[in-house]
Amino acid sequence: MSKPLFVLNGPNLNRLGTREPQVYGTATLADIQRLCERAAGDVAVDFRQSNHEGQLIDWLHEAEDKALAVVLNPAGYGHTSVSLRDAAACLSIPLVECHLSNTAAREDFRRTSLISPVAAGVIQGFGPASYELAVIAALRLTGATA
Amino acid sequence: MSKPLFVLNGPNLNRLGTREPQVYGTATLADIQRLCERAAGDVAVDFRQSNHEGQLIDWLHEAEDKALAVVLNPAGYGHTSVSLRDAAACLSIPLVECHLSNTAAREDFRRTSLISPVAAGVIQGFGPASYELAVIAALRLTGATA
Amino acid sequence: MSKPLFVLNGPNLNRLGTREPQVYGTATLADIQRLCERAAGDVAVDFRQSNHEGQLIDWLHEAEDKALAVVLNPAGYGHTSVSLRDAAACLSIPLVECHLSNTAAREDFRRTSLISPVAAGVIQGFGPASYELAVIAALRLTGATA
Amino acid sequence: MSKPLFVLNGPNLNRLGTREPQVYGTATLADIQRLCERAAGDVAVDFRQSNHEGQLIDWLHEAEDKALAVVLNPAGYGHTSVSLRDAAACLSIPLVECHLSNTAAREDFRRTSLISPVAAGVIQGFGPASYELAVIAALRLTGATA
Amino acid sequence: MSKPLFVLNGPNLNRLGTREPQVYGTATLADIQRLCERAAGDVAVDFRQSNHEGQLIDWLHEAEDKALAVVLNPAGYGHTSVSLRDAAACLSIPLVECHLSNTAAREDFRRTSLISPVAAGVIQGFGPASYELAVIAALRLTGATA
Amino acid sequence: MSKPLFVLNGPNLNRLGTREPQVYGTATLADIQRLCERAAGDVAVDFRQSNHEGQLIDWLHEAEDKALAVVLNPAGYGHTSVSLRDAAACLSIPLVECHLSNTAAREDFRRTSLISPVAAGVIQGFGPASYELAVIAALRLTGATA
Amino acid sequence: MSKPLFVLNGPNLNRLGTREPQVYGTATLADIQRLCERAAGDVAVDFRQSNHEGQLIDWLHEAEDKALAVVLNPAGYGHTSVSLRDAAACLSIPLVECHLSNTAAREDFRRTSLISPVAAGVIQGFGPASYELAVIAALRLTGATA
Amino acid sequence: MSKPLFVLNGPNLNRLGTREPQVYGTATLADIQRLCERAAGDVAVDFRQSNHEGQLIDWLHEAEDKALAVVLNPAGYGHTSVSLRDAAACLSIPLVECHLSNTAAREDFRRTSLISPVAAGVIQGFGPASYELAVIAALRLTGATA
Amino acid sequence: MSKPLFVLNGPNLNRLGTREPQVYGTATLADIQRLCERAAGDVAVDFRQSNHEGQLIDWLHEAEDKALAVVLNPAGYGHTSVSLRDAAACLSIPLVECHLSNTAAREDFRRTSLISPVAAGVIQGFGPASYELAVIAALRLTGATA
Amino acid sequence: MSKPLFVLNGPNLNRLGTREPQVYGTATLADIQRLCERAAGDVAVDFRQSNHEGQLIDWLHEAEDKALAVVLNPAGYGHTSVSLRDAAACLSIPLVECHLSNTAAREDFRRTSLISPVAAGVIQGFGPASYELAVIAALRLTGATA
Amino acid sequence: MSKPLFVLNGPNLNRLGTREPQVYGTATLADIQRLCERAAGDVAVDFRQSNHEGQLIDWLHEAEDKALAVVLNPAGYGHTSVSLRDAAACLSIPLVECHLSNTAAREDFRRTSLISPVAAGVIQGFGPASYELAVIAALRLTGATA
Amino acid sequence: MSKPLFVLNGPNLNRLGTREPQVYGTATLADIQRLCERAAGDVAVDFRQSNHEGQLIDWLHEAEDKALAVVLNPAGYGHTSVSLRDAAACLSIPLVECHLSNTAAREDFRRTSLISPVAAGVIQGFGPASYELAVIAALRLTGATA
Repeated sequence: MSKPLFVLNGPNLNRLGTREPQVYGTATLADIQRLCERAAGDVAVDFRQSNHEGQLIDWLHEAEDKALAVVLNPAGYGHTSVSLRDAAACLSIPLVECHLSNTAAREDFRRTSLISPVAAGVIQGFGPASYELAVIAALRLTGATA
Repeated sequence: MSKPLFVLNGPNLNRLGTREPQVYGTATLADIQRLCERAAGDVAVDFRQSNHEGQLIDWLHEAEDKALAVVLNPAGYGHTSVSLRDAAACLSIPLVECHLSNTAAREDFRRTSLISPVAAGVIQGFGPASYELAVIAALRLTGATA
Repeated sequence: MSKPLFVLNGPNLNRLGTREPQVYGTATLADIQRLCERAAGDVAVDFRQSNHEGQLIDWLHEAEDKALAVVLNPAGYGHTSVSLRDAAACLSIPLVECHLSNTAAREDFRRTSLISPVAAGVIQGFGPASYELAVIAALRLTGATA
Repeated sequence: MSKPLFVLNGPNLNRLGTREPQVYGTATLADIQRLCERAAGDVAVDFRQSNHEGQLIDWLHEAEDKALAVVLNPAGYGHTSVSLRDAAACLSIPLVECHLSNTAAREDFRRTSLISPVAAGVIQGFGPASYELAVIAALRLTGATA
Repeated sequence: MSKPLFVLNGPNLNRLGTREPQVYGTATLADIQRLCERAAGDVAVDFRQSNHEGQLIDWLHEAEDKALAVVLNPAGYGHTSVSLRDAAACLSIPLVECHLSNTAAREDFRRTSLISPVAAGVIQGFGPASYELAVIAALRLTGATA
Repeated sequence: MSKPLFVLNGPNLNRLGTREPQVYGTATLADIQRLCERAAGDVAVDFRQSNHEGQLIDWLHEAEDKALAVVLNPAGYGHTSVSLRDAAACLSIPLVECHLSNTAAREDFRRTSLISPVAAGVIQGFGPASYELAVIAALRLTGATA
Repeated sequence: MSKPLFVLNGPNLNRLGTREPQVYGTATLADIQRLCERAAGDVAVDFRQSNHEGQLIDWLHEAEDKALAVVLNPAGYGHTSVSLRDAAACLSIPLVECHLSNTAAREDFRRTSLISPVAAGVIQGFGPASYELAVIAALRLTGATA
Repeated sequence: MSKPLFVLNGPNLNRLGTREPQVYGTATLADIQRLCERAAGDVAVDFRQSNHEGQLIDWLHEAEDKALAVVLNPAGYGHTSVSLRDAAACLSIPLVECHLSNTAAREDFRRTSLISPVAAGVIQGFGPASYELAVIAALRLTGATA
Repeated sequence: MSKPLFVLNGPNLNRLGTREPQVYGTATLADIQRLCERAAGDVAVDFRQSNHEGQLIDWLHEAEDKALAVVLNPAGYGHTSVSLRDAAACLSIPLVECHLSNTAAREDFRRTSLISPVAAGVIQGFGPASYELAVIAALRLTGATA
Repeated sequence: MSKPLFVLNGPNLNRLGTREPQVYGTATLADIQRLCERAAGDVAVDFRQSNHEGQLIDWLHEAEDKALAVVLNPAGYGHTSVSLRDAAACLSIPLVECHLSNTAAREDFRRTSLISPVAAGVIQGFGPASYELAVIAALRLTGATA
Repeated sequence: MSKPLFVLNGPNLNRLGTREPQVYGTATLADIQRLCERAAGDVAVDFRQSNHEGQLIDWLHEAEDKALAVVLNPAGYGHTSVSLRDAAACLSIPLVECHLSNTAAREDFRRTSLISPVAAGVIQGFGPASYELAVIAALRLTGATA
Repeated sequence: MSKPLFVLNGPNLNRLGTREPQVYGTATLADIQRLCERAAGDVAVDFRQSNHEGQLIDWLHEAEDKALAVVLNPAGYGHTSVSLRDAAACLSIPLVECHLSNTAAREDFRRTSLISPVAAGVIQGFGPASYELAVIAALRLTGATA
């Protein structure tokens, strides 16, 4: 199986480790990338981050052709972006949504995700382990072992 | 009259023909560009697409100086972007909003368009023909025959 | 093709040209009938108006048997009539909804149309030209050229 | 007991059997009239249908003087007509509301009936049998056996 | 001054005196007509009632040409009819809305009137005297003494 | 009949004639007092104004013992004061609510009056004539002629 | 046909005849059981009541295997129990919802039933006769005569 | 580490495999128990199911004293039970909420979970694999390897 | 006076003293029972707790026959249970609702109690003293001194 | 302990005994003052009433310096006054809110109190006894016996 | 320029420095008066505070005749007082609204100000410096330098 | 102090002076930059504008390391961008939000800012002077004089 798993990260996640550590913890995005790679085993991981909604949409389009599956942490765009949702909805490969924090325990406006209804499933609240579990889940959905 | 008609397309429309064909049909964006050019007759068509909200705003600013009128399919940004609305509102040339699908027959969150109140008019639900009708409408509004 | 196109007009449209001209313009309903006939080319136009909700429902029933397609400006009943919607929903021929004004730019209670979700498509905001475009759209949907 | 039972049918029910058969079934209104007559036994049935809200109101006024009780399928007007509700509220004879389909299982706007709070009771979801049950219920309420 | 005052009555008001007397009192519509005629003095009163929304719209159109002013008790249609509102809004003569009961003290759905925002003023809660006061108000607005 | 009619005016009405004349007209509160006195005929008018919610409540308490009836223009307190409503609700004499402007045609927050449900009736939109009509209405309710 | 009809009663119905007789009447649950048995004719009736949500769910599961059809009066749980709804939704046999009182004429929180959308149909407002009608309806749906 | 992991299942899950298989799949609860046991490795699994809200509350109380952590699929009670939430909130051991289906993609009333804000995290949409992932997550949170 | 006072406690109150002590304090339910007994003086106290909604309903039914009055802390069921409310509403003896914490100062979903409108009165926010005050209040309502 | 207990009464309570006796009973405010004094034992009671929101705020400020604790019946201002709430929130002494009637059983707009979230606790529905219980509660909170 | 700047302070601001210092800081109102005077330079400052809504309205009326401009901290009345808004709306001189705290970061009911839409502008969140900035802004709006 | 003040401008502000001058005035963004530089005195101003949400987020990240403080006019993104809010929330330096127009006096959707709750304070409605005041405020917050 030669296609990689895309792990796409939305806005502000590049600040991880410095941004509101009482909410998001002290792990950096590089730490999380390593966790994903370990969890993915033999499957390659293409790990990216952008603060630009349009860039994330472009990457989802690219994933359709090049990726085995997608793990997406949409961050703030998950609550507001119909466009990102539309991009996710037209994927024929599995997409798993994940969040570091448990969004259900935070502000009201974080309780609704436009992505969740078009994702295969959602994992949230386990810190960096959310990514590991999401990688495992994504590989299960593709039939690749994890 | 030497100015072209701008036909601007929002996010995910570059995937047309592959994206959810049961909703959007099998025509590609290139097919639609050809329909627009034929409908516009002697008026040139400047046909563009972007997944980036900021890019679409830049193009609306550019249209103010260079375009005869604008046909805009805002796609997902039409439901969420106050910024795109503000860009549309400051145009002194006519703007016609169009949609391939009949958004009134879809999910609730697609029923409200922030663009519609500042557009001259709206055309939706006729597939690629929505664009043709929008081109005709835009030219009517500028006094150019179609 | 011997069946006519039905163009049905809802309440108060008989006052067109005198009613709130700053909103609806100075064209009369007779002017609009002529525009429709010209737009329909060889296809006959059966052009009617009524202030009675029940009458409009009766005409939609009649259309099912006798018309090629329907262009409907439901006017005020579009915002309130579940019964008219039910009549529109049981048509097997195409129905195009049109409005002279851009209802999205007016009072809140005009922003929702009960008809739109069961119409093939919607055209609004272009004044009398909304009817022309609607006639063209309706003929396209039936396969008749326009 | 010489007064008849009024069975009054609202808009679009004249199209029964052709209108959206997947929702309403293939029985015609004439079929339903026969079911009602059989269910009413010795009591005469005055069975009517109109697409006109005002007509239905007139009939409810007439019922007050001439009918034993009323079975009313308000169809679309049940969700929107305060006027029909007011007419029903001033009856001193029993009124039973019935619906062919189970409105609770359909669109949100069909879940509220303005008639129900002023009816004696409601029966919905059993197809033509809803009418039979409603006739039995109405006769019970008047003390006539069924 | 030869034009009459139109006093238009909406649905169910023909049942006045029998309909829910605890809410509407025992006066009949004929009693109210006499009160209006006395209040109008030398100005003729054209007093009508209909249960049909379309009929009331037709009469408002007729009033524009023939009446000095309009007193309208829209009854149930006041809470639901955008079409009647549109007809009222295109009048150039004064329209006074009146109600027998104090609608603010009744069910929630009676608290909003679509007519009020396009009427000159509103009078409610005084029983038949509401009509007398409305006739006086209408004549004041036309400059005719009362 | 020796008791006077109380005509009580809420906040900002002391500025009448200078405050937003496009909304409230150029008549002063003294002008309105004269209109009320003329309308009341032989009945004395006790005409007062205060910007203080508590003062208006005190006056309503006083009215219970000393007044024939009350005409109240609650102005801004009508939309917000449960306390004023409670004071009005415990009156055993008639209370008529009046407004110079047609509040139904203004901002949304002016469309609801907490006073209306506990008033005998409401009159609004006729400028100073609203007070005259309210005086007449109040006297009718007490059985005094006007 | 050897399977019985289950008639299941929710919370507080064991108090029937003593509980709020002005709302629910004086018949006891035993009286209603007899009415159901008579209405069911040759079909046996398994008539039960519980105040426990979990018990009612267990009984619906049992019904799937043992019952011909179900008549369910969910009482208070009908307005609040997603779990009971889920149990009803997984039945392959017909379920008829019934209520003694006309819930549409009572408190707002009683107007929505979570059960209704997954029931075959609903009967409410006829007192004990609601059960008789529901038994007839349920037998009709199973093809058993009643 | 001698304490077991509690895996608690809410209403209707005992019907798994037969209940709405198009939503929940064909695996039985026994199948899921085996998956959990395998995922838990050396940690024992105490696997229970109840249709009774009170029973589930009792078990959460028991878990506080006896369990290492809790995996809870609250099923229908997750959307309605403040009492179950309160029981979850007073745990000092980790609680992971899981769902077979992706509740975000289903009915509106399933989109809100009262449990999620007091859970450590949430996993939904992966069918039986949701349980496996939840077991892994729970063990991670306790510091036990998985 | 031989009948006892029922003091009924809803879900999770058995965990009092350990459950979220920062909200509910360190007193146990046994401590509260003693406070109630002392406050009740010569009147016996029947003090019970259950996590089962149905059990609490059963007990309210039992109270009707056996108790002098009821003090009820419905805990979580107070916010969600229409069934418990219905049981409370059919009592002919006084019912006093009490809460340890001031629910008005907590989460939004705790601000509404379905029980309060059918209770004689409500006492909340005083910790264990809420029970004492409730016992005093209940005895007052029965005419027994406290 | 030389500081008195402030018992502050909001608008319209001076009319107690005459105002809507079916809601508030026949006791006067003087009667209630006597009950409070008796309940307070050795602690002095400073008992006041005002219809002026500003006066009540002034008194709460005064209480901070001079009172042992406050019992406040905010009456109508409790539902509308953010300013009174702010005054209550800045007290360092205990404040107990009380109401004669059970506000939860009355109009919707009475169900929310802006004061409750910043009070120590709330007592409502027991008529004059609400004050007695509130005095006891307030003294408990200050550590003074009652 | 001989007219002074009015700086008007609403309810509870007299307690500044003692009231909730974690929200409002330790500066007293006298401190703020000095800051305003310094910021106003040669322009005199008329600095007042009241807890009475009516007093604040009276002062706004007075300002129209005597003040150069108004700085208003409406405190709690800003969220509830239509009457204060009406007084502000009829000013022909500039009015600047200011708040010590950032109301957008506090309770929901503080997020809406009835004053803001009729103010020239708003400044909030800078503690006492909000007043200084507001004084500068007010003087700019009058053309006086600051 | 060598770090500059960042003044960041959101979408469409590059069109200032041409865009809707009746709302935003005739000053250009270059004019505003000069005002900011003058107001900042010795502190350098880094003045930027972008129509791209992602770019604004990137700049806020950059500000954390390089800027003394931030003045942000988020324009349209302030009403819709959770992502921009998240970027603002993780700043440890002061952020002041400013707007040229008084957003409280405009369309409803402009009344809520997602940025305001995480800003130090807000200044709006003073045209270009809003920026000057914001610069002064920002410098105050950093302890730099202005």
